[in-house]
Amino acid sequence: MSLTFIRRSPGLQFGGIDLRQLADRAGRTPFFAYDRSAIDIRVRELRSLLPSVMQLHYSIKANPMPAVIHYLAQRVDGFDVASAQEMALALDAGAAADTIGFAGPGKSHDDLRRAVASGVNVHVESETQLRLVTALGWELGVQPNVAIRVNPDFQVGHSGMRMGGGATPFGVDVDQVPALLRELETREVALAGFHVFWGSQCLHAPTIIEAQRQSAALILRLASALPQPLQFVNIGGGFGIPYFPGETALDVKAVCEAMHDWLPPLCQRLPGTTPILELGRYLVGEAGIYVCRVIDRKVSRGRTFVITDGGLHHHLAASGNFGQVLRRNFPIVIGNRTDGEPRERCHVVGCLCTPLDRLADDVELPDAHIGDFVVVKQSGAYGRSASPVHFLSHPEPAEMLV
Amino acid sequence: MSLTFIRRSPGLQFGGIDLRQLADRAGRTPFFAYDRSAIDIRVRELRSLLPSVMQLHYSIKANPMPAVIHYLAQRVDGFDVASAQEMALALDAGAAADTIGFAGPGKSHDDLRRAVASGVNVHVESETQLRLVTALGWELGVQPNVAIRVNPDFQVGHSGMRMGGGATPFGVDVDQVPALLRELETREVALAGFHVFWGSQCLHAPTIIEAQRQSAALILRLASALPQPLQFVNIGGGFGIPYFPGETALDVKAVCEAMHDWLPPLCQRLPGTTPILELGRYLVGEAGIYVCRVIDRKVSRGRTFVITDGGLHHHLAASGNFGQVLRRNFPIVIGNRTDGEPRERCHVVGCLCTPLDRLADDVELPDAHIGDFVVVKQSGAYGRSASPVHFLSHPEPAEMLV
Repeated sequence: MSLTFIRRSPGLQFGGIDLRQLADRAGRTPFFAYDRSAIDIRVRELRSLLPSVMQLHYSIKANPMPAVIHYLAQRVDGFDVASAQEMALALDAGAAADTIGFAGPGKSHDDLRRAVASGVNVHVESETQLRLVTALGWELGVQPNVAIRVNPDFQVGHSGMRMGGGATPFGVDVDQVPALLRELETREVALAGFHVFWGSQCLHAPTIIEAQRQSAALILRLASALPQPLQFVNIGGGFGIPYFPGETALDVKAVCEAMHDWLPPLCQRLPGTTPILELGRYLVGEAGIYVCRVIDRKVSRGRTFVITDGGLHHHLAASGNFGQVLRRNFPIVIGNRTDGEPRERCHVVGCLCTPLDRLADDVELPDAHIGDFVVVKQSGAYGRSASPVHFLSHPEPAEMLV
Repeated sequence: MSLTFIRRSPGLQFGGIDLRQLADRAGRTPFFAYDRSAIDIRVRELRSLLPSVMQLHYSIKANPMPAVIHYLAQRVDGFDVASAQEMALALDAGAAADTIGFAGPGKSHDDLRRAVASGVNVHVESETQLRLVTALGWELGVQPNVAIRVNPDFQVGHSGMRMGGGATPFGVDVDQVPALLRELETREVALAGFHVFWGSQCLHAPTIIEAQRQSAALILRLASALPQPLQFVNIGGGFGIPYFPGETALDVKAVCEAMHDWLPPLCQRLPGTTPILELGRYLVGEAGIYVCRVIDRKVSRGRTFVITDGGLHHHLAASGNFGQVLRRNFPIVIGNRTDGEPRERCHVVGCLCTPLDRLADDVELPDAHIGDFVVVKQSGAYGRSASPVHFLSHPEPAEMLV
C-alpha cells in the first residue's frame, strides 16, 4: 500500500484486522467473527499429522454459518449433519451426497425422507429408523445408503461429554447390531458403514487414543460378520479445546501418532473401507470470537459491574448455562486495551434483565470504559446457534467469516 | 351443535380442545399452546384479591407471543418491557405509552432513543442511563418520563432468583439515589416513579410479604425527599409457580391480604401515586403446554428411552439447562393416554444429538407408543423465547393461543 493509515487504536487484531475496523465492518455490536486462516491452519496441521488414509469430516452442528461450511467444503472430505437443514447446508456448499453422514437419535419422517431422496448416508440409530429408511427407499425408488450408529460397549473416562458406553439414546447397543443386520439383509439393503461415537470435548490424549483403539476393535468385531465390505467406518470425534484456567490443549500429535499404530491393521482387515474422523468444535472453536461493547459501568455495594450490549441470548455457553455444572469464565479480554494499562477486578454482564446473564465473574481486566470492546475467545463453536437469540427480543448478533 | 362427533382419542383436553385436534390445528408437532381462559381466570382471581388501587402489569419477557400480549392488553393495566422490541409489541397491542415501564441494566442508545420517542416510562438503572435519557429528551424535543430502579438495601430469603439486595447490575443502590435525584433536578426532569425489584420465582408467601413491606418502607423513605408527588411506584413481582415435586403453589391470598395492611398507609402518604405489581411467569406460566410427539422408542442397556421430535432447542428450561443448579423434571404426561393404562419407567429425550437434550429422567409414565403426545406442563413462560431455537437447525415450534 502506498498510503500510511493512522492506527486508530491499540489492542487486539483478529484475522489481521483491527478490532474497531472489524466492528465497523459488522456495522454493529455484538458480533461473532471467525478467522478463516485460523480454520485453515487448524485443518492443515491436523492433516499433516493424520494418516493419509484418514478422511476428515466437519460436524456442522458446531457452527452452521453457511460461509464457514462453504470454506470447509474445500478443506475437508465430508460433513456430519444432525438435521435435514444441516444436510441442505452441506449440499448447498457442494458436498457430494455420499460424503455426508446424517446422525441423530430423533430423525423425523421428514428428515429421513429428505435424506433418502438426497442420497446421503443415513446413520440409523434404531430399528424404527432402519425400517423407515428402507420403506422410504421403496417409496422414492432410491437405494438408501444406510450406516449403523453403534453405542459402544466400552466407556472412557475424562470425556467432557459422554455419548456412548452406558445406556444412551444414541445409536444402538452393540448386542442389537446383529438384529439390524438381519433386517437389512431381509430388505436387500447393503450396509454402507458403521459409526461409533463415544464422547466429545475431551482434552486427554490417552483417553482419545484408548477410545479410538477400542472403536477400531469393535468395528472389526462387527465387520467380521458382514458379507460384503463397508464403504466407511466413522470413528467419531471428541477432540476438545481448552476453555477454562487449568485446561491445556489436547496433545493432538500423540493422538495422531497412535493412529499410525492402530489404523493400518484396521485398513488391512477392511480393504476398500474409508476411515473417517469427524470433528466440529476442534476445527472451528478456537477460530472464533464474540465481541460486545461496554455500554455502562456501575458500582454496587463495592463491586464493579461492566455492562455490555451482549449476553446469554447470543452466547449461552459463555454465561455458564449450557451443560456446565459449575459456572466458569470463558477467556475474556478488553479488546482495545493492552495489558499494560491499569487493571481492576470486575464482573462482566450482559444487557438482559436476568441474573443468569453473566459473561465473566470476578475477573481482573484492564479498566473498561464505555465504548470498549469485550472479546470472548474460544467462541467459534456452539455460540450463536446454541443460544436463545429471541430471549427478551433484543437484536440478533452479526456473524462474519474474515 | 346438532351433530355428534366421534371422540377420536382418550386423554388430555387443553383449552377445551382434544389434544389430537389441537395438534392438527397446529399442523405439526412440536408446538406450544397457551390457554386464554386459564390466563383470564388467573388475572380475575388475582384482581379479586388485590386491593383495588393496585395496578397489575404484565412482564412481557415471560412470554412475548403477540397474541398473548394483545389478550392481556385488555386485562392488565400496563406492561413491563425489557427491550425496544418488547416495547414495540406492547405499543402494537394498544397499550398507552405511560402504562409501559422499560427496565433493564443494559439499555442501548437505540433502546433509549426509541423509548424516549415513544413516551414510555424509562426505569433508569445508572447515571449513564439517566444522562442519556435526558440528553435524548433534548435531542428529540420530548420531555422524557423517568423512573429510578432501586436496588433495595434488604435481601430476602427463599426467592428462586434474587435480583436485588446484594451487589447487582440491576438498578442503583439506595445510597446512590440522592445523586440521581440531584442530576434530574439539574436537568429539569421530574421523577415519574420508583421501581423496586427484589427477586423472582418465589413460592413462599411470607417472603413476598416481607419483601413488599420492606419495598414500601424503602419507597416512603426515598419519596419523602421529593419536591413533587410520584406518578407510580412499582413494587416488582416475584410470584412463583410450582414446577417440581415437593413445590406447592404460592399462597397468593395471604400475599394479597397482607397488602390490605401495608398498602393503604403507603397510598395515604403518597396521594395520587399509583402502586404497580408486575408479574410475568405468574400470569402465563401455568397456562401453557409444550407438546411433542414420540417418534421412537429404544432400550439401551436395560433402560427405556422415549424419543420425541421436541427438545431443548424449543424448551431449554425443561431440559434443565436454564439457570437450574440441579436438573429436575418438569411435570410431564403422555397426553393421549390415561393413568389407567400400563405404565413403565423411562427417560424422555429430545431429538438432538447431545446428551443435554433430556425432557424427563427416570419417570413413570403410561407406556408411550410412537405417535403419542408428550406434554410438558407449566410451559407458558420462559419456553420458546428462552430457548436456542436454531440449535442443530431443526424446525421451530409452532405457537398457539387457544
